[in-house]
Amino acid sequence: MTKKIVTFGEMLLRFSTSQGERLSQAHHLTAHYGGAEANVAVSMSHFGYKSFLVSKVPNNPIGTAALKHLRSHGVYTDYIFVGGERLGTYYLEAGAGERSAHVTYDRKYSSFSQLEKDEINLDEILSGATLFHVSGITLALSPELRELTLLALKKAKERGVRTSLDFNYRAKLWSQQEASEVIQVLLPYIDICFFGELDAVHLLGLDHMDDSLPMEERLLRYYTIISKLYPDMKYISSTFRTVISASSNRLQGNLFTDGTLYQSKIHHIEPIIDRVGGGDAFAAGILSGILDELPPEQIVSFATAASALKHTIHGDCNAFSKDEVIQFANSESGKIVR
Amino acid sequence: MTKKIVTFGEMLLRFSTSQGERLSQAHHLTAHYGGAEANVAVSMSHFGYKSFLVSKVPNNPIGTAALKHLRSHGVYTDYIFVGGERLGTYYLEAGAGERSAHVTYDRKYSSFSQLEKDEINLDEILSGATLFHVSGITLALSPELRELTLLALKKAKERGVRTSLDFNYRAKLWSQQEASEVIQVLLPYIDICFFGELDAVHLLGLDHMDDSLPMEERLLRYYTIISKLYPDMKYISSTFRTVISASSNRLQGNLFTDGTLYQSKIHHIEPIIDRVGGGDAFAAGILSGILDELPPEQIVSFATAASALKHTIHGDCNAFSKDEVIQFANSESGKIVR
Amino acid sequence: MTKKIVTFGEMLLRFSTSQGERLSQAHHLTAHYGGAEANVAVSMSHFGYKSFLVSKVPNNPIGTAALKHLRSHGVYTDYIFVGGERLGTYYLEAGAGERSAHVTYDRKYSSFSQLEKDEINLDEILSGATLFHVSGITLALSPELRELTLLALKKAKERGVRTSLDFNYRAKLWSQQEASEVIQVLLPYIDICFFGELDAVHLLGLDHMDDSLPMEERLLRYYTIISKLYPDMKYISSTFRTVISASSNRLQGNLFTDGTLYQSKIHHIEPIIDRVGGGDAFAAGILSGILDELPPEQIVSFATAASALKHTIHGDCNAFSKDEVIQFANSESGKIVR
Amino acid sequence: MTKKIVTFGEMLLRFSTSQGERLSQAHHLTAHYGGAEANVAVSMSHFGYKSFLVSKVPNNPIGTAALKHLRSHGVYTDYIFVGGERLGTYYLEAGAGERSAHVTYDRKYSSFSQLEKDEINLDEILSGATLFHVSGITLALSPELRELTLLALKKAKERGVRTSLDFNYRAKLWSQQEASEVIQVLLPYIDICFFGELDAVHLLGLDHMDDSLPMEERLLRYYTIISKLYPDMKYISSTFRTVISASSNRLQGNLFTDGTLYQSKIHHIEPIIDRVGGGDAFAAGILSGILDELPPEQIVSFATAASALKHTIHGDCNAFSKDEVIQFANSESGKIVR
Amino acid sequence: MTKKIVTFGEMLLRFSTSQGERLSQAHHLTAHYGGAEANVAVSMSHFGYKSFLVSKVPNNPIGTAALKHLRSHGVYTDYIFVGGERLGTYYLEAGAGERSAHVTYDRKYSSFSQLEKDEINLDEILSGATLFHVSGITLALSPELRELTLLALKKAKERGVRTSLDFNYRAKLWSQQEASEVIQVLLPYIDICFFGELDAVHLLGLDHMDDSLPMEERLLRYYTIISKLYPDMKYISSTFRTVISASSNRLQGNLFTDGTLYQSKIHHIEPIIDRVGGGDAFAAGILSGILDELPPEQIVSFATAASALKHTIHGDCNAFSKDEVIQFANSESGKIVR
Amino acid sequence: MTKKIVTFGEMLLRFSTSQGERLSQAHHLTAHYGGAEANVAVSMSHFGYKSFLVSKVPNNPIGTAALKHLRSHGVYTDYIFVGGERLGTYYLEAGAGERSAHVTYDRKYSSFSQLEKDEINLDEILSGATLFHVSGITLALSPELRELTLLALKKAKERGVRTSLDFNYRAKLWSQQEASEVIQVLLPYIDICFFGELDAVHLLGLDHMDDSLPMEERLLRYYTIISKLYPDMKYISSTFRTVISASSNRLQGNLFTDGTLYQSKIHHIEPIIDRVGGGDAFAAGILSGILDELPPEQIVSFATAASALKHTIHGDCNAFSKDEVIQFANSESGKIVR
Repeated sequence: MTKKIVTFGEMLLRFSTSQGERLSQAHHLTAHYGGAEANVAVSMSHFGYKSFLVSKVPNNPIGTAALKHLRSHGVYTDYIFVGGERLGTYYLEAGAGERSAHVTYDRKYSSFSQLEKDEINLDEILSGATLFHVSGITLALSPELRELTLLALKKAKERGVRTSLDFNYRAKLWSQQEASEVIQVLLPYIDICFFGELDAVHLLGLDHMDDSLPMEERLLRYYTIISKLYPDMKYISSTFRTVISASSNRLQGNLFTDGTLYQSKIHHIEPIIDRVGGGDAFAAGILSGILDELPPEQIVSFATAASALKHTIHGDCNAFSKDEVIQFANSESGKIVR
Repeated sequence: MTKKIVTFGEMLLRFSTSQGERLSQAHHLTAHYGGAEANVAVSMSHFGYKSFLVSKVPNNPIGTAALKHLRSHGVYTDYIFVGGERLGTYYLEAGAGERSAHVTYDRKYSSFSQLEKDEINLDEILSGATLFHVSGITLALSPELRELTLLALKKAKERGVRTSLDFNYRAKLWSQQEASEVIQVLLPYIDICFFGELDAVHLLGLDHMDDSLPMEERLLRYYTIISKLYPDMKYISSTFRTVISASSNRLQGNLFTDGTLYQSKIHHIEPIIDRVGGGDAFAAGILSGILDELPPEQIVSFATAASALKHTIHGDCNAFSKDEVIQFANSESGKIVR
Repeated sequence: MTKKIVTFGEMLLRFSTSQGERLSQAHHLTAHYGGAEANVAVSMSHFGYKSFLVSKVPNNPIGTAALKHLRSHGVYTDYIFVGGERLGTYYLEAGAGERSAHVTYDRKYSSFSQLEKDEINLDEILSGATLFHVSGITLALSPELRELTLLALKKAKERGVRTSLDFNYRAKLWSQQEASEVIQVLLPYIDICFFGELDAVHLLGLDHMDDSLPMEERLLRYYTIISKLYPDMKYISSTFRTVISASSNRLQGNLFTDGTLYQSKIHHIEPIIDRVGGGDAFAAGILSGILDELPPEQIVSFATAASALKHTIHGDCNAFSKDEVIQFANSESGKIVR
Repeated sequence: MTKKIVTFGEMLLRFSTSQGERLSQAHHLTAHYGGAEANVAVSMSHFGYKSFLVSKVPNNPIGTAALKHLRSHGVYTDYIFVGGERLGTYYLEAGAGERSAHVTYDRKYSSFSQLEKDEINLDEILSGATLFHVSGITLALSPELRELTLLALKKAKERGVRTSLDFNYRAKLWSQQEASEVIQVLLPYIDICFFGELDAVHLLGLDHMDDSLPMEERLLRYYTIISKLYPDMKYISSTFRTVISASSNRLQGNLFTDGTLYQSKIHHIEPIIDRVGGGDAFAAGILSGILDELPPEQIVSFATAASALKHTIHGDCNAFSKDEVIQFANSESGKIVR
Repeated sequence: MTKKIVTFGEMLLRFSTSQGERLSQAHHLTAHYGGAEANVAVSMSHFGYKSFLVSKVPNNPIGTAALKHLRSHGVYTDYIFVGGERLGTYYLEAGAGERSAHVTYDRKYSSFSQLEKDEINLDEILSGATLFHVSGITLALSPELRELTLLALKKAKERGVRTSLDFNYRAKLWSQQEASEVIQVLLPYIDICFFGELDAVHLLGLDHMDDSLPMEERLLRYYTIISKLYPDMKYISSTFRTVISASSNRLQGNLFTDGTLYQSKIHHIEPIIDRVGGGDAFAAGILSGILDELPPEQIVSFATAASALKHTIHGDCNAFSKDEVIQFANSESGKIVR
Repeated sequence: MTKKIVTFGEMLLRFSTSQGERLSQAHHLTAHYGGAEANVAVSMSHFGYKSFLVSKVPNNPIGTAALKHLRSHGVYTDYIFVGGERLGTYYLEAGAGERSAHVTYDRKYSSFSQLEKDEINLDEILSGATLFHVSGITLALSPELRELTLLALKKAKERGVRTSLDFNYRAKLWSQQEASEVIQVLLPYIDICFFGELDAVHLLGLDHMDDSLPMEERLLRYYTIISKLYPDMKYISSTFRTVISASSNRLQGNLFTDGTLYQSKIHHIEPIIDRVGGGDAFAAGILSGILDELPPEQIVSFATAASALKHTIHGDCNAFSKDEVIQFANSESGKIVR
């Protein structure tokens, strides 16, 4: 039977400029719907899971469009509440080469950020689920959402639903101190966790390792410490991203489990078509691999390939099936197929 | 010397779909900057006035883009304050034929709506000005803005600056009762006023005239009553718009002064390219004609021609010079010029 | 509980030129997925039904795209088989004014046209269904599909599932004689039927009524005759379309039931954005009204409004909810809503 | 054997805005190649003639693009000389409804306008030709071109090549007096001539007929007078164009021969996609009909249908075959063909 | 006198997505006409040859568009027959970086694949020709086309027309064994032949050389063996393509003649705009160089430069003149010319 | 108080193709307004200066559009004269990878090139100015413009206005000998000068240094010689541009002052979105840095960063503020900011 996956987070409408265009010059903007957890749900749907997003959108054509977006990717919208004031939006001025992309948020007062606890029936939502996934963005949006998330994680644990947290720290949304306090409360309830070196130091308070150690060695040490603190945390994962320019990145995936760090090959991503959602595609790949009980080295290869693929298409969503990701992971890059 | 014109109001970013496209289908949206008073300022700039907008925009690329928009039309941005949370936005699903256009507002919490009185130095702003113009939209946005407007009108009167008010009633922003109370306080300070029959009845509380009277007769009577109540109100103006469909309208301008109602010829506007800003173009035409001391029949012809022209181009702004409007008003329609 | 609706037919990929462009000049073509029965399914989904299409698409990215299209409109794809050679396509050179649109079919050898009987489990498909709908296009595609349709109609009748047939005669697919023979076999099993005067004469063999009779009188007589021949046929419906030009049509809906002909008001559709799918939107409107047990005059008004709305948007699909159609049917046309 | 047609004139590159856009707002311009005589050559090629343009284009990518344009429509470019400074250009601000299109010429110093007599071998060019066609635009461009045209017409007459002249008066290029003097010298050598009432009065010096006479009666009288003055002029032709707006015209064709005026039905052209080249399409239709020795009423119907069709597509060129024009002339307008 | 070149093959309509877009997301597709032999004909036309394609296209607007495409590039369409069912199409999902482009064929049942022998008069077609070129794709399409090709090659040899074959093996069209049998029958009649190492091994049955040998050494050996088997085969050619990614390739040309292998410099092609037709541009470059009797090192440089240029433009066609290719081959790359 | 900057030069309208498109294939062209001195004025305006362009544009919509362009970037148009025949234009066929961009000029007979001395009141223009900037392009256009420039430089020196000259040698406009004679007359009046090694040798007649010397050493020697010849020349500047391909360049800035050569870091610009205006952005950066009295190493870093940024956006204009350039100069490249 198809496994039920539940994610919990905000949907946003992104307005992007074309490459080579500043926001102040743009007469046409591309509209993409997304959101960290929504993107994970979309990937999981393309991977064959019965994927739900728990969220709230306004009762207007923009809310409707957000729902239509999810449905077109096969995500179930049964747990999306309708109401509130607005869908959060943001503007992305596309980068090019040395010039970075630039985000302008306009997401305050969103319907989701004003979601109230009693709107949600967590028991119904978690019933029959295999996995519950959330990211730090949801936590940053309101105290109410933090409480809800904690409650959901506790209930999930009780019911044997696996739990997953992607730190996804956004400095424009909250301070490191706030994030640190909130996240540490949740960690005991997390089975699968996504965070990197900076998070380990700044949000979890570990000492910065000696920079003379290689990156993977440092990461292994951070992860070993954390996994001992939180014994339920069976998997910790992250990516190394080397930013050569806004158009060219190198990407390698990391997966720590049972005391060992597994790494994917390094993907050379050039040109980058759209990197928004690249991390979510990676997270979905890890989650899917874990649920499929693949060996760790395969999980991390699959997830990194999924993320690399995402970078080659516009929009937040990784619209590739499991087979397509596997074929890509195994093929020589760039050969035309005909 | 070029006359200084001051308008006071909010700028908005409009996201429009293409004709024949629903918001939920749109992957690209057209971005237009505008606002009732900003549009009047733009028209006045193209008509040769030194035009200012008093407003507030956020300190981000969208605020910058709004300023750039005004400058490209020659509007002075010296009195635009930078700060606050966001630029108000709205979505316009374009209509076609029988199907009306549909507006979804997302303008709450805007920088302008949170403008505070002491941010503005009215004396500086009004210094040397010939005209001060505002619309009911500004009044609808906050009590602070109402107070500011009242203060500005009083100061304008003291300084001999002419004052103009366009009712621009928007049911989505405030109730008729609220609007009625606010507007009636201002009317004694208004020299030039734009409102129609529905406003006369619902906002000014006049009795509805017998429908068997012809429209122009009814309007004449309403205007006569009002002009007696407010002796400073030398000019009252409005348009008759016959909506045949979202793609085809008839438009006639009305100007009441010295007890007489003057009417323009009827413009047949088909196809309508974009009717947003059509009323603002009309208002600017009336204001320009009055400042030029044209005879009333010429003022109303000029203003209605300006409004008809606006309907033939995309965007909120009437980018036609005085000469172009006059040439259009006098020419046979639709002949290719070569 | 949401009612289950089953439609049975082919999906096509349409390549359209922009208005004012010939196929031989076109460097970019717009891709729309559709099909007579698929379009009905889409409308019914937007009207709140649990809508299924029974069909077959190839195992390639074009087949996948067709499925994605349906899902984005909420149509269930559980009964769509994957295999065969190709998705049928066609080219639409858009018309303008006096110049008609022109269709070039490239739909032979499609996966659906090669569907075989034993691929389909009619019992499962019809289980729990409220309505089964098919059009003459399915019948035109292969003898196998005719047999399947007949079988499905018989089974539907046995199970108390309502049946609906839209003649949709296409001269490029089969001759009148062929169509006539096939259709007459099916009619005894049809509850709701869509055909017009030309069909009555050329496919059902009725004598052409005297042209001096008004159109509605002639239609009433045809429908009376047919409804007596086929006592199960409770509803017969059609539209009168007056083609002023490719950009301007008048449209009126007809619904015959219990011996009475009900007619909608006449919609003036100008400009026509895209008339493909206009008939399907009408059919879906009639079906929805019947299932909602509306009075006949409301059914036909609703259906004709739905069809008129469809003409104002691009693509084959009528992406309007029941509420939106009702609001449109009742509103003055063309007023901007803000 | 396919008949050889020779036209003589300038090619221009047109930069057009989209509908609803002013030149000062346009970030993208559509590029169309054309020219009065080139357009006639293109139509004649689509009608099945072996069509040549005699012209001159610069030796740069724009000149190359002009040649490619002609070849894509099957026009022979053997007599197009390469050299000189530039291809003439012009800007067309598209009109909409009441607002007329507006042309800004930038065509001075063009390669063609600087063509010299000895670059051209008229004997070779006219060898084997059936028809030689030129318009008043060529005459307006330089004295050298006038001399060349006169010489060509004389040689054509000697060789039995039919001659055709379309007045095509452009006030931006020369005065009525200049045009009048030049044209009157050529008329004795013209077999087929295109001009209307205004030309008869202003360029040929006829007295203005009493306006109380119906238009066709007046035209008949002008044509009768002229045809007596120039006995070789077997055909005179023109169109009546009623400009309802820039988006809607009525068009009727006139053809005078043997003392009788034949008129086509009136075409209602709405919306007008692009009217540039509409007159050239008409001229080509008349010329084709004459060469085919059709009866006059058929000639004028065919030509007016060709012109109406041209208005429904973008660009200067009437890319319709003889069969397509005939089918259009005979069909009910606007029916979708499928 | 301009040399006559004859090519024989199918035309296809390609639907491409934009970079960064999946087929299932694409609302607009770019239409390109091409085909291996058609592309060679186009290149040869731009190089100054009188170029013909022998082919068959359907009698519909798509067939017409294919003809127009060829004519716009100066290719003669006298030997293109009109009839049959359809023009073959295919979909190209553009690749980006590591993600390869992906082709979905929909070319079965095409007019060309159903061409029959007696439709073609080979004597007329070959009369006066200098070169006859065909590729393995034509051979893959039907037994009838194989017979026709063999007949054409024999007749060409009799008449002293040079013959050229590009293997162009497509695994989606036929098996290696089928291809091997067919091609080996033709080789005795071939003067100029295009194939690489894989073809030598899999289609011609040579033993795979030891991989420790450098590529050029291996190729030299294969070519030496083959040229001894087929003494008429004066030239054998191929390219080495190093696929760094879908956006970046290295390309080097090989030409074997008189026992020596000549190689071009290596072109670094990045970004790749569109690689479809790159091989055809190379083949045309080789053919043109041979007909011009250039020294072998110049031939291969010219051909590889032509192919590299093709990669920098959209569409299948290499629209560069001989001079432009030479200038490119000799210039420093990437300098702006102004 | 904001410093007044005056630049003197021609505005041009550029028509660009999209990447991967030849001019002969282009149906849509992008319109950009620019010009070497205009671009400097735009940059200076974004850097916070009160920037003027002295120029002349035609009295037509294209002239109006040029003015609107400047105003939208905050440039003052008070000294732009209206009249003359045309705005100069040029066509840019975009390059890609190894294929260079290609410029086709159509700028002769422009309004600016026909500017006459007595149209300009140099005293008014220079009044209150801090800087006067001009480039060699202005000098190339007419003897009158050379005289005017000389006069302006002399007057500037008298008034203590700093003077700047960018050689900007264009081989398509004048010969090296002409340029050499003209420029050498002006050099005594120049404070800040932009030229590179080739200019030093070919326009200033210095001996070519031994190529075995490193580039910066050679440049230092040239600059040392020149600065001794022209003691007023306090700053000499240039860029080293390594053209890897049309899509990838390396760029390093040079600034010589007080006998020392300062160099920026090397920017790797890939992909290049649009390099037109890159040199003007650099010049503006140098000028701004000098006026801000930054240390030389900061000036050259700022200027090179400004130029690198310009390469990442479409159009001639560097629409970045001083803060944005500084932030870019100091940031790690390519990180998304959110």
